[in-house]
Amino acid sequence: MTNPCIICVAITGSVPTQADNPAVPVTISEQIESTHAAFEAGASIAHCHVRDDAGKPTSDPERFARLKEGIEAHCPGMIVQLSTGGRSGAGEERGGMLSLRPDMASLSVGSNNFPTRVYENPPALVDWLASEMITHDVKPEIEAFDLSHIVHATRMQADGRLKGPLYVQFVMGVKNAMPADERIFDFYIETLNRLAPDAQWCAAGIGPAQLTVNEWSISRGGHTRA
Amino acid sequence: MTNPCIICVAITGSVPTQADNPAVPVTISEQIESTHAAFEAGASIAHCHVRDDAGKPTSDPERFARLKEGIEAHCPGMIVQLSTGGRSGAGEERGGMLSLRPDMASLSVGSNNFPTRVYENPPALVDWLASEMITHDVKPEIEAFDLSHIVHATRMQADGRLKGPLYVQFVMGVKNAMPADERIFDFYIETLNRLAPDAQWCAAGIGPAQLTVNEWSISRGGHTRA
Ligand SMILES: [Zn+2]
Ligand SMILES: [Zn+2]
Ligand SMILES: [Zn+2]
Ligand SMILES: [Zn+2]
Repeated sequence: MTNPCIICVAITGSVPTQADNPAVPVTISEQIESTHAAFEAGASIAHCHVRDDAGKPTSDPERFARLKEGIEAHCPGMIVQLSTGGRSGAGEERGGMLSLRPDMASLSVGSNNFPTRVYENPPALVDWLASEMITHDVKPEIEAFDLSHIVHATRMQADGRLKGPLYVQFVMGVKNAMPADERIFDFYIETLNRLAPDAQWCAAGIGPAQLTVNEWSISRGGHTRA
Repeated sequence: MTNPCIICVAITGSVPTQADNPAVPVTISEQIESTHAAFEAGASIAHCHVRDDAGKPTSDPERFARLKEGIEAHCPGMIVQLSTGGRSGAGEERGGMLSLRPDMASLSVGSNNFPTRVYENPPALVDWLASEMITHDVKPEIEAFDLSHIVHATRMQADGRLKGPLYVQFVMGVKNAMPADERIFDFYIETLNRLAPDAQWCAAGIGPAQLTVNEWSISRGGHTRA
């Protein structure tokens, strides 16, 4: 792939709280400011989670709306990607913000283990989130925590449950899911190219794997998440 | 690998009921008879599920005990493998038969999607089942529904949660999990050999994938499940 490098910034992941790290932005205005700083530094996609007043992950569409508006005002042209990840809600709650019509939203298409629990993405919910993204013209970023998630996304594209070229993020380094493994990283790319030749991909290494995965990603012409 | 071919027979999978197919054996004595027939035909491992009186999958240790005794009496030398799969119970119930000390038991080490639901194998349950298998000297057959399951099993072996050479079954063809894909099949073998050079593997294709996966397996020197 010869795309210009897209730098994707994850503003406030779903795990850390300010108790863990006081520098992690939590209020909407703090999030907007730190996204703005990343934008000026060259980031072009903002991957967004929101928190409730107690600092806990939530899917509250009203908070997502304020964050989205703020980023659009401060960072013209930045791609806003809202998370439909499972830490912030259960069932269809997870897609309640899709009617805001963000540029992109994350979409997990399979289930896997996380450090202490099962990350549950039941087939009916996956299909519902995908159909909501079509309805509201939201481009999904497929979150691939395992190889079958990549394969499954290509099938969903083939049968029309996902539209347009796939955009897949390889996630490595989450405990009990796929670790950072270079040979597997290359096989992810090979499999995606084989089954969906028009797809694009990016990669995220979690925790200590972050820099390593970024290096692999840059050297293979993918996008990175910082 | 140059092992003699092991044929593994799955007597009564966890899904079909007699309503679907009257030829599927369900009572313990029917199961013993059909295992015996497979044994005479050359099968060397019996992968066993049991049913309750209504024909529903169960983990009832008393039923597993009767099945195990019957197979041992009718099929001397046959390896008895009891299922700890998630269709037959919830939580630690799934391992209640391990104290019977069967030769082998199935062990899922990760979670994934099944046709209509999440196949849940939370990390704490996986570790508990593995420790019970060590306690009762039961050899696990790792059920790999995705690539990270293979990788995770090699980590569990490396840190002592699994003892001795791994025995891994690649499962392909379950809807919403990994489909039958020959390039991925070969990558499964490559990854297992790379991360656990002393491991053995077998493969099961589910539904229409069964014969295809058996052929791949035989041509690569693995074991098959019929
Ligand atoms: Zn990205
Ligand atoms: Zn996220
Ligand atoms: Zn087998
Ligand atoms: Zn089974």
